[in-house]
Amino acid sequence: MAEPVRFGVLGCANIARKVIRAMTLAEGVEAHAVSSRSLEKAQRFAEEVGKATGAKLIAYGSYEELLSDPQIDVVYMPLPTSLHLEWVQKAAAQKKHVLLEKPPALTLEEMDKILKVCEDAGVQYMDNSMWIHNPRMEAIRAAKQSKENFGQVLRFDSSLHFHLPLHSGDIRLDSALDALGALGDVGWYCIGHSLWAMDWDLPQRVVAQPGTKTSKGGVITSIGATLVWADGRVATFYCSFEAAWGQQAYLVGTNGHIHWNDLCIPMREDSCAFVTSSKPGLINSDTEVSNEYRETRVDLRVPQEALVLEDFAAIVSGLKAGKEALDSRWPERSYKTLRVLLAVKDSYDKGEAEIRVT
Amino acid sequence: MAEPVRFGVLGCANIARKVIRAMTLAEGVEAHAVSSRSLEKAQRFAEEVGKATGAKLIAYGSYEELLSDPQIDVVYMPLPTSLHLEWVQKAAAQKKHVLLEKPPALTLEEMDKILKVCEDAGVQYMDNSMWIHNPRMEAIRAAKQSKENFGQVLRFDSSLHFHLPLHSGDIRLDSALDALGALGDVGWYCIGHSLWAMDWDLPQRVVAQPGTKTSKGGVITSIGATLVWADGRVATFYCSFEAAWGQQAYLVGTNGHIHWNDLCIPMREDSCAFVTSSKPGLINSDTEVSNEYRETRVDLRVPQEALVLEDFAAIVSGLKAGKEALDSRWPERSYKTLRVLLAVKDSYDKGEAEIRVT
Repeated sequence: MAEPVRFGVLGCANIARKVIRAMTLAEGVEAHAVSSRSLEKAQRFAEEVGKATGAKLIAYGSYEELLSDPQIDVVYMPLPTSLHLEWVQKAAAQKKHVLLEKPPALTLEEMDKILKVCEDAGVQYMDNSMWIHNPRMEAIRAAKQSKENFGQVLRFDSSLHFHLPLHSGDIRLDSALDALGALGDVGWYCIGHSLWAMDWDLPQRVVAQPGTKTSKGGVITSIGATLVWADGRVATFYCSFEAAWGQQAYLVGTNGHIHWNDLCIPMREDSCAFVTSSKPGLINSDTEVSNEYRETRVDLRVPQEALVLEDFAAIVSGLKAGKEALDSRWPERSYKTLRVLLAVKDSYDKGEAEIRVT
Repeated sequence: MAEPVRFGVLGCANIARKVIRAMTLAEGVEAHAVSSRSLEKAQRFAEEVGKATGAKLIAYGSYEELLSDPQIDVVYMPLPTSLHLEWVQKAAAQKKHVLLEKPPALTLEEMDKILKVCEDAGVQYMDNSMWIHNPRMEAIRAAKQSKENFGQVLRFDSSLHFHLPLHSGDIRLDSALDALGALGDVGWYCIGHSLWAMDWDLPQRVVAQPGTKTSKGGVITSIGATLVWADGRVATFYCSFEAAWGQQAYLVGTNGHIHWNDLCIPMREDSCAFVTSSKPGLINSDTEVSNEYRETRVDLRVPQEALVLEDFAAIVSGLKAGKEALDSRWPERSYKTLRVLLAVKDSYDKGEAEIRVT
């Protein structure tokens, strides 16, 4: 049995709880340590999460200590976005691979630096977008490649929204920490899915839809946008901190469409589904629509949160064995997603102006 | 038993077949006559439709003859939009009530004239938007009025698309007959639903989304748009002649959402449904979403195509009995829908400029 890939967690953010749980479920992965700026907080967090998940975490009282632990292969960073560059630089200096919480950066310049420092240090970069590691995406991709039942992609509409109390003190509403607000948080997933739907081609141009809402501090709390590709494909999305939890995906082709109503976080962690409709049409003197909706179910051996870690660990194991090079797909996809996201922000800032991307 | 309300049909358009069938199913309604510019065509059509539906139709060889039949109460007009004003004027002159196929007019000036001539003549105007007469809409309205389970309306996204062969010679692709293309045809329904969702308040402004497609003759074949209300509510829609048949509606509130995937033409004509999700949220350490999707089914005594006719006939019966005044809701809703539709067209024509509506 090969050595597990050991993960250290930088910070005690809430999201780290489910990621540490996933570390205990993922094969070939070990939850090794957690750090906070205070040892006491790190110890309390390690104990709590340990009880809930069985993870045996070393607690460090500073991020630096964790980074200098030679046993750690990968650092998972659920830090506020404004701190990412600094800590990626420090992690890369210690030759730690980096699993970064999204959004990875606030500007493309920061993103360039983050990716360059990882590449130069020979460490793998990945952002923690879980959905893309879910085998459902491969099953949907196969369905959309059917010329007969789906045809050509014309449009992808997605939405992701939940209610974040605006006075909760959540970092996602603090312009000093996560200035991209709902766009950086939930919008990240919509844009990622849109690029995925278009085979990771970049759109030619993007426009923020009118109707953006912001907090009193100027952080975006709701926004929609339209992305247009050079060949005429279109994607739209809506993301918000103000609406009831909801997450729709609707992929429209010339011969059929595909729908799933749990874009980002599956209804169940052991199984998820999508619905296809192939060659639908009017029947019965045009008063009914042929109902060919078909659900395809995809079973998950481990939750998608664990699949990210397994995919990451497989790359790290390959690197450690000297068998594999850095996997450039992950930094590329992350970069493209941020590029489009910032173009949407730019469009909003410029009064819903059209922003050229390619 | 009261006299039935008698309908005459101006023209032998394909859509008239299902409307005449609906006349045979609607209570208090009689399919009385059909006319074409050629008697032979009208006779052949009357015979064909009679065989299929049991309707016993008088065939007239000119529209004028039909309009002068004193037995006819209502004229149903499935004519190309460019002919509407002329024939509404002639029908009103004969004191015939008018059920008009959509889009009712190509300009607001035409629309004003159509509505004025009907009002002045004391005849009822209604456009043949069937969905709104479906009792499902009342059931959804009740669901969205639940403060606890739905909350406040934030957004409504709809889409309606089907594949219309671009060289089919269909009037909806002929700029001389139906210059509003997919926007006038399928877009009409999306905009109507959007206004319905917002309790018939007019939006403050509309913007066509980038990515509109047109035929070689310049008729819109695909378009999306964003509508914004003064209080921040947003609606978006996508309509197309280029995609597989599909019709989505997604109404988002602060505490829940409502979804139906047969916006305009129900899957079945005797029953239709919608799905509500109330107070959805993350569960199980944030790795699953609470699945509270609930389907509500609404049974239909007669198909929605017949319900329009019954609603119309009830107004006409009331007018004939001298008990009721003209019902102003129908011309108002039709006018508002066209007003928004033309604002979207204007936005597209002006390079996706924002167009003020109110």
